[in-house]
Amino acid sequence: MKYAEATVVLDGHIIDSLILPKVLDTILALGGTFDLSEVRIGTKRDEPSHSKIAIRADSADALAGILRAIQPHGVMVEGEEDCQLEPAPRDGVLPENFYATSHLPTQIHLDGRWLDVEQIEMDLAIQVDVRHSRAGTVPMGDVRAGDLIVTGRQGVRVFPLERPRERDVFSFMQAEVSSERPNTYAIADIAERMRVLRKQHESGRKDSNVLLTGGPAIIHAGGREALAWLIESGYIHVLFCGNALAAHDLEAELFGTSLGYRLSAGHPVPHGHEHHLRAINRIRALGSIETAVREGVIKSGVMAACIRRKVRLVMAGSIRDDGPLPGVITDTMVAQHAMRDGIQGVGLALLVATTLHAVATGNLLPATVPTVCVDVNPAVPTKLADRGTFQAIGLVMDAASFLRELARNLGWAG
Amino acid sequence: MKYAEATVVLDGHIIDSLILPKVLDTILALGGTFDLSEVRIGTKRDEPSHSKIAIRADSADALAGILRAIQPHGVMVEGEEDCQLEPAPRDGVLPENFYATSHLPTQIHLDGRWLDVEQIEMDLAIQVDVRHSRAGTVPMGDVRAGDLIVTGRQGVRVFPLERPRERDVFSFMQAEVSSERPNTYAIADIAERMRVLRKQHESGRKDSNVLLTGGPAIIHAGGREALAWLIESGYIHVLFCGNALAAHDLEAELFGTSLGYRLSAGHPVPHGHEHHLRAINRIRALGSIETAVREGVIKSGVMAACIRRKVRLVMAGSIRDDGPLPGVITDTMVAQHAMRDGIQGVGLALLVATTLHAVATGNLLPATVPTVCVDVNPAVPTKLADRGTFQAIGLVMDAASFLRELARNLGWAG
Amino acid sequence: MKYAEATVVLDGHIIDSLILPKVLDTILALGGTFDLSEVRIGTKRDEPSHSKIAIRADSADALAGILRAIQPHGVMVEGEEDCQLEPAPRDGVLPENFYATSHLPTQIHLDGRWLDVEQIEMDLAIQVDVRHSRAGTVPMGDVRAGDLIVTGRQGVRVFPLERPRERDVFSFMQAEVSSERPNTYAIADIAERMRVLRKQHESGRKDSNVLLTGGPAIIHAGGREALAWLIESGYIHVLFCGNALAAHDLEAELFGTSLGYRLSAGHPVPHGHEHHLRAINRIRALGSIETAVREGVIKSGVMAACIRRKVRLVMAGSIRDDGPLPGVITDTMVAQHAMRDGIQGVGLALLVATTLHAVATGNLLPATVPTVCVDVNPAVPTKLADRGTFQAIGLVMDAASFLRELARNLGWAG
Amino acid sequence: MKYAEATVVLDGHIIDSLILPKVLDTILALGGTFDLSEVRIGTKRDEPSHSKIAIRADSADALAGILRAIQPHGVMVEGEEDCQLEPAPRDGVLPENFYATSHLPTQIHLDGRWLDVEQIEMDLAIQVDVRHSRAGTVPMGDVRAGDLIVTGRQGVRVFPLERPRERDVFSFMQAEVSSERPNTYAIADIAERMRVLRKQHESGRKDSNVLLTGGPAIIHAGGREALAWLIESGYIHVLFCGNALAAHDLEAELFGTSLGYRLSAGHPVPHGHEHHLRAINRIRALGSIETAVREGVIKSGVMAACIRRKVRLVMAGSIRDDGPLPGVITDTMVAQHAMRDGIQGVGLALLVATTLHAVATGNLLPATVPTVCVDVNPAVPTKLADRGTFQAIGLVMDAASFLRELARNLGWAG
Repeated sequence: MKYAEATVVLDGHIIDSLILPKVLDTILALGGTFDLSEVRIGTKRDEPSHSKIAIRADSADALAGILRAIQPHGVMVEGEEDCQLEPAPRDGVLPENFYATSHLPTQIHLDGRWLDVEQIEMDLAIQVDVRHSRAGTVPMGDVRAGDLIVTGRQGVRVFPLERPRERDVFSFMQAEVSSERPNTYAIADIAERMRVLRKQHESGRKDSNVLLTGGPAIIHAGGREALAWLIESGYIHVLFCGNALAAHDLEAELFGTSLGYRLSAGHPVPHGHEHHLRAINRIRALGSIETAVREGVIKSGVMAACIRRKVRLVMAGSIRDDGPLPGVITDTMVAQHAMRDGIQGVGLALLVATTLHAVATGNLLPATVPTVCVDVNPAVPTKLADRGTFQAIGLVMDAASFLRELARNLGWAG
Repeated sequence: MKYAEATVVLDGHIIDSLILPKVLDTILALGGTFDLSEVRIGTKRDEPSHSKIAIRADSADALAGILRAIQPHGVMVEGEEDCQLEPAPRDGVLPENFYATSHLPTQIHLDGRWLDVEQIEMDLAIQVDVRHSRAGTVPMGDVRAGDLIVTGRQGVRVFPLERPRERDVFSFMQAEVSSERPNTYAIADIAERMRVLRKQHESGRKDSNVLLTGGPAIIHAGGREALAWLIESGYIHVLFCGNALAAHDLEAELFGTSLGYRLSAGHPVPHGHEHHLRAINRIRALGSIETAVREGVIKSGVMAACIRRKVRLVMAGSIRDDGPLPGVITDTMVAQHAMRDGIQGVGLALLVATTLHAVATGNLLPATVPTVCVDVNPAVPTKLADRGTFQAIGLVMDAASFLRELARNLGWAG
Repeated sequence: MKYAEATVVLDGHIIDSLILPKVLDTILALGGTFDLSEVRIGTKRDEPSHSKIAIRADSADALAGILRAIQPHGVMVEGEEDCQLEPAPRDGVLPENFYATSHLPTQIHLDGRWLDVEQIEMDLAIQVDVRHSRAGTVPMGDVRAGDLIVTGRQGVRVFPLERPRERDVFSFMQAEVSSERPNTYAIADIAERMRVLRKQHESGRKDSNVLLTGGPAIIHAGGREALAWLIESGYIHVLFCGNALAAHDLEAELFGTSLGYRLSAGHPVPHGHEHHLRAINRIRALGSIETAVREGVIKSGVMAACIRRKVRLVMAGSIRDDGPLPGVITDTMVAQHAMRDGIQGVGLALLVATTLHAVATGNLLPATVPTVCVDVNPAVPTKLADRGTFQAIGLVMDAASFLRELARNLGWAG
Repeated sequence: MKYAEATVVLDGHIIDSLILPKVLDTILALGGTFDLSEVRIGTKRDEPSHSKIAIRADSADALAGILRAIQPHGVMVEGEEDCQLEPAPRDGVLPENFYATSHLPTQIHLDGRWLDVEQIEMDLAIQVDVRHSRAGTVPMGDVRAGDLIVTGRQGVRVFPLERPRERDVFSFMQAEVSSERPNTYAIADIAERMRVLRKQHESGRKDSNVLLTGGPAIIHAGGREALAWLIESGYIHVLFCGNALAAHDLEAELFGTSLGYRLSAGHPVPHGHEHHLRAINRIRALGSIETAVREGVIKSGVMAACIRRKVRLVMAGSIRDDGPLPGVITDTMVAQHAMRDGIQGVGLALLVATTLHAVATGNLLPATVPTVCVDVNPAVPTKLADRGTFQAIGLVMDAASFLRELARNLGWAG
C-alpha cells in the first residue's frame, strides 16, 4: 500500500469551539489530505454537530502522526480499538511511552466501551483498574511497579471545553491579560458566582466549594480584613497558602505590622522586620495556630476565621520560610498531595497575589473549574496560561483592591 | 413578512482562518438561524473554499445587525448593492454614520464592481473619488465639506489576513506575549527578513523599506552602536522617534553620557543630567543636525548614520520635550502626517522601547506589514494588540540586548 | 601656589537631610581634603545647623570641580561673588555655559544680595531682569537674543528639601516603589490633604489647587464615576490629560463603552472600537465640549464635571490621537506652556495611569509640591524618579481602585 | 531621677556611610536630645572617624527605645555590659525576647570582650557556646531546649557595610532598580570579578566561589549554551535551582524543546508540553542525573556541565514540581540547610530569573557578599530589597541576554 487511510468521527459543539477547521488545518499542515464524507452542523447553539472525515497520508507513520495531533480535539478513530496498557517497570517510574494527561475531561476505551478518567489533572498518567473497570490519574512519584498504565494515544479521547451558558466574565475564557479592562464588572460576576455557590454549599450540593490560593501580599497590601470577612461569612471553603501569608496575618494580630510596616499607617516601624519571626516563635511555643485561636491569643484575621469556620487549610512550605509555623507541610510532595485532596469539590478557584502557589494550584485544577488569577503583575496570569491553565481569567490589580471590592460586593461594610 | 432573510457568500481560506465557524457562531449568538446551502472546502492548504449561507432573522433590524456583525469576516451579501456615500457636512467633520476602517485590506462596491481602498489604515473614513473611480482613506481632521464619504456597511468588504507561507516567527502571528520564549530564534528570523529586504531595497523593489520606531532607552541601555551600525549597513530605511532619542544620541557623542549616566562605565556623572540640555542647545546654535554632522561636530551614532545614509527621519514632538532639537515636528497632527507618508513602502516594522511612538506607528500600519514590538515591559505589546495592531509579535527584552543580538546576526562585530 | 583653597559655608537642617557627610564625601571622592573649622549641629529637630569647611585641592581646576559638585547641596562659597550673566546669542539659543536649573528652591547673588528665582522648574535657564532686580526661569525655546542668562555656578545656591513636619505618607519622600505596601493608608493620607486643601481653596488661600494628570486607563478600568465625583465635589481644580481620556469619557457617555468594552458588563461590543471615533466626530460637529455639555448632549462624567466646576483643563495632543477633539492643543510646545501656567498655585499633584503626561507634569513641578504617582506598572514611578521628580510617592495599583478608594475616603457612596 | 542618660560611642567610616546624622536624627525623632561631646571626622577616605554622643531622654523606657533604634548603626553604649543569655525553653522554640540577626557583620560582648558571630545570616538567633567562647547563628527550627540564646539588644553590635574600594558596579550598592541603565557595563564589571575569582578559586583562596541561583526561564529563553559554557569554563562553583531548571535542561537535550517550544526555531511543538515529563521519567528510570551523564544519555547542557565540573548542586523541591527528578530535595527545611552549607565560601552571587530561589538565597547570604539579581521584571529585585537583601544590584533584562553577554565577555564564541 502506497498510502495510509483512516476515517475519524468528530462530534459535539463543533461551531462553538472552532474545532472542525482546526482539525482540517492540522491534517493539511502535517501533509495529509481529507475528504469530508459527512458534515451535519447543528443549526442551534446547543444542537450538536457531527462530521466524518476520511484522512489520507503518505505512510502509516505520517497517518499516526496526524491522528496523534488531532486527538486532543476530541477526534475519535472509527472502530476505535481499546487503549493500550503497560505495567509500570518500577516504583516511581512510568512506562516509557505513557500517555500524559491534559486537564480536560478524558475517557479511555476499555473492553469495548468508553470509561471516564476520574479526578483528571494535567501532566499525570492514567492508571487502570481492569477488575473494577475504573480509570484514574496517578502522579509519577506515586506509581508502584506493576500498576497498569495507559500508553500511546489509541483508545483515549478528550473533550474540549464547551463555552459556558452563563453570559458572565467566565464565558470569555482564554481572554488576553490586560490592565485596561474594567475589573469592577468582572468582580461583580465573581461575587454573583460566590453568592450562588454559598447557597449550594449550605444545601450540601457537590462541587460548591470556593478555593482561595493566596500570597502574603494580601496582608502587606491591606486586604486582611476583607479576606477574613469573606471567610467568616462562609464564602470561602478551602485556603491554600504558604508559611508567609499565615505568619504575616498573625504578625498583624500580635504587632499591628506586616513585613515590618505598620498597617494602621503604612509606615515602617523600627525593627518591624523581626515581628513575623516573633509571631512564628510565639505560635511555636503555643504548639499550634488552633491553640492560639482557642486560647484567645489570636482573635481576628485570616487564620482565626479559617479555624472558626473549619475552612480546609493547606499551608505548604518553601525554601524561603522562616520557622516555619506549626501546621506548615515542609515536604513539597506531601503538600502537593494535600492540595490535590483539597481540590476535590471545588467549583471556583481564586488565585490571588502568588506565582508559586497559583501555578501549583493551576496544575491540579481540572479545566472545568472556573478560575480567576489576580496579580498586579500581568506576567503571572500569562505564566499560568503558558503552563496550561488556559481557563484562568486574569485581573491585573493589587490583592487588597480586589479583595476589598469583592467583599463590598458581597455586603462588607469596610 | 414575519421574518427577514438574506443569502451571503463566504470565499477564501476559510479553514486557515477559522472564519466559517466564527460566522456561524455569530449568527446564532445574535438570534438568527442559518442553512448552509453550499459548502465546498478546499482540500489543499492554498485551495480556496466557498460557502453560501442562508440567514434568517426575526426582523429586518435583527438581520441588519447580523450582517453588520459578520461583515468584517469578509462575508458578502449576494447581489451586493453599491456602498452608500454621503458628503461631509463641514470641514473636519464626517457624516454621522461614516464607515470606520480597520487596517485589513478593504474593497468597496461602486458602480457594480469592487474597488480597492488605497493606503488602508485603521480608524479612518473612506473617501471616494467617483469621477476617477478611486477610493482612499481620510483622517477625520483632513476631510473637507462636500467630500464623499462611505457610510454604513453595505458594499464594503474586508479580507482577513492569510497566514503567511514562510514558516518563520511571523507565521505565528497573534501569539501571546511572554517572557518565556526563546527570543534568539525570533531575532534570527527577523535578521533573515532584513537580509532579504536589503537586497530588494537595493534593487528598487517596492515595499522593501525597513522602519524602526525607537525610544530613548535604546541609547540609555547601551544599544547605540548596534543601531548606528544597522543604519550604516543599509538595513534600516525609515526612522521614527521623538526628541529624546535624538537628544540622547547627540549627548552620547558630545559628552559620553545618556540621561547623565556615563555610557562607558554605567555610573552617574555629577551634573550629567544637564548634558542633554547642553547637547540640544549646541545643535540649536548650529542650526540643524545636518549641519552638525556636515561640520564634523557629530561624527558617529544614530543621527549621524541617518544623515549619511539618507534615512527618512521623522522626529515627532511631545509635551515632555526639552528644547526641542531643530527638525522636531512640534505639531502632533503635522507629525502624524509625516509618519503616514513615511509608512509608504514599508515591508517590516520594528517598534523598540517606546509606548507612545509604537502605538502611534501601529495605528498607521496596514495589517499586512510584519511588525515586531520589543519592550522589557510585557504590557507594551499587549497595549498595542488592545488597540488593534494584532499582527505585532511581542519580544519581552531590553532594547540594547535586542539590537545587539540583531546586529550580530547580520555581521556586526561589536 | 601649588594648590587651591576655598572656604564654604553650609547652613540649614544638616542632620535631617544628611547633607554634611554627602558634601564631605564628595570632596574626598574628587581628590580634595577638608578641614571642618566650625561645626554647630542643631540639637532640636527644627534648629538649624551651621558648618564651615575649608577645602583644599591640587589645582584651581580641581577646586572648581569640587565646588561645582557640592553646590547643589546648598553649599555657599564664603565671600560669594555675584552670579555671571551672559546675553543669549540668538533667539532660542542659550549661552554655551548656561546654568541649568533643578526644581529645588534657588537663589542667585546679584548686586551683593540673594534673590529668589521665581517659578522654579527643572532643566531651564535663569533669566535676569537687572533693572527690576528679578530673576525667573526661561525655557530654551523662549529665550530671545540679548536676554541676560546666568552662566556657570558662581553666585547660585539651591536649598535642599526639608522633611515636612506632617507625619503622613509625604514625610517618607524618596521611598522606593513597591507593590507590597499598604496603599489604603497612603490613600487616607492623600484624602486628608485634599480635605484641607479644599477648605483652603474655598477660602482663597494660595497654593491650594489640586492637580490631577490622568490617562485613559482611568476610564477603561472603571474609575470614571469616582473621578467625576471628586471633581464635582470640588476636590480637583486642575486637570491635565490628552485626547484619549476625554474621548473615552465622552464615548462612555454616548455609547456606554470604553475602548470598545461595555463598561456596565466588561464585555467587548461588536464594532465597539469605533465608538470613540464617533464620539469625537459628534463633538467636532457640535463645535466644542462646552457646547456639548451646555446643550445636554453630555450630562455626566469627567468632562462634564470639569466644565460645570470650571476646572482648569489642559488637553495636550499626541501623535497617536484620533480626531482630535476640539480644545486639544496639538502643538506640544504650546501645550507645555499651558501646562506651565496651570501648575501655578498647585499644592498637590496626582499623576494617575499615564507615563507621558506624568513625566511631562513632573518636569514642570517644583520639588516642593507633594506629588503622587499611581500606576499598576512599578516602572512608571521609577521612570519619574530617574528624570528628577524624586519627590513623587509611587503607588502600585490600578487607576480605578485608587480613585474609587480615594473618593470613598472623601465621602463617595459608589 | 526625672530623665535618663547614656553616652554612646560611634566609630568607623562615619562619612562614607552617612551614619552619624542618621543616628542623631533617630535620637531626635524618638524625642531625645543629644550633646556631641566629641567629634573627630577622618579627613581621608579610609581614615576612621570617632564621635561620642551623650543622649538624654524623658524616661528609662524612652532611653531604651532610643538605644534599641540606633544600635543597628553600630553604636556602642560606653561601658557596654555583656549580652544577655537565656536558655531556649523547648526544642524549636526561642526565648520570647531573642535577638533577631541582620545579615551584617555582628559581634556580641561576652566576658568583657567582643566576639564575632560566625556564619551571620538574617532572621536567625545567636547561640552562644560559653565554654569555648564562640557565638554562631541558629535557625528557630534547629534550636534545642537549653541552648543559650542572646536576648535583648544589650551587648550586641553590628557593623554597617563599608563602601567597597573597587570603583565598579558594586560600589553603587543600594542603587534603585531601573530598566534605563546601560547593563552592558555592569556585565563587564561582573565578568571582571568572575575572572579574578576563578584565578583565586584555582589557587585555593577562600571565599572565591561563584554561586548561580537560576530559574527555568534560563532554558526557555535560550540561555542554556551560555550557562553550560560558564560552568564548563570554571566560572561557576555552586548552583542552586529547582526541579524545573534541571528538567527543562534535560528536556532540551533529549527532545530539543523547552516548555514544549522547539529551541532551534522558537515554535511550539505538538504535544511538546509532555517532553519535560518524559525527560523526568527517563532519568528516574536510570536512577540519577549522574548516571545519565556517565552513561552518555545526557551529553551537554547545564546538568552535564555541573556533574563534569563537580559543581556543588542543590536542587530544592517546590509544590509545583512534576516528578521530581532524582536528587531534588523535597523537604524545604532540608533543602534550606543544604543551601546554607552551599553558601559557605561564596564570594559572588548571581540570582537569575527566579523569584522564589532568589529570595531564599538572599535570606541566607551575608550582606558582605556582592550580589546581582537579574530579571526581566523589575519587581523581583525590589522584592529582594524589601526583604532585606539591600546589597543586591538589579539588572532588568531577560536571562538569556544576560548570560550570553556575560559569557561573551569571558570568551564564549556563541
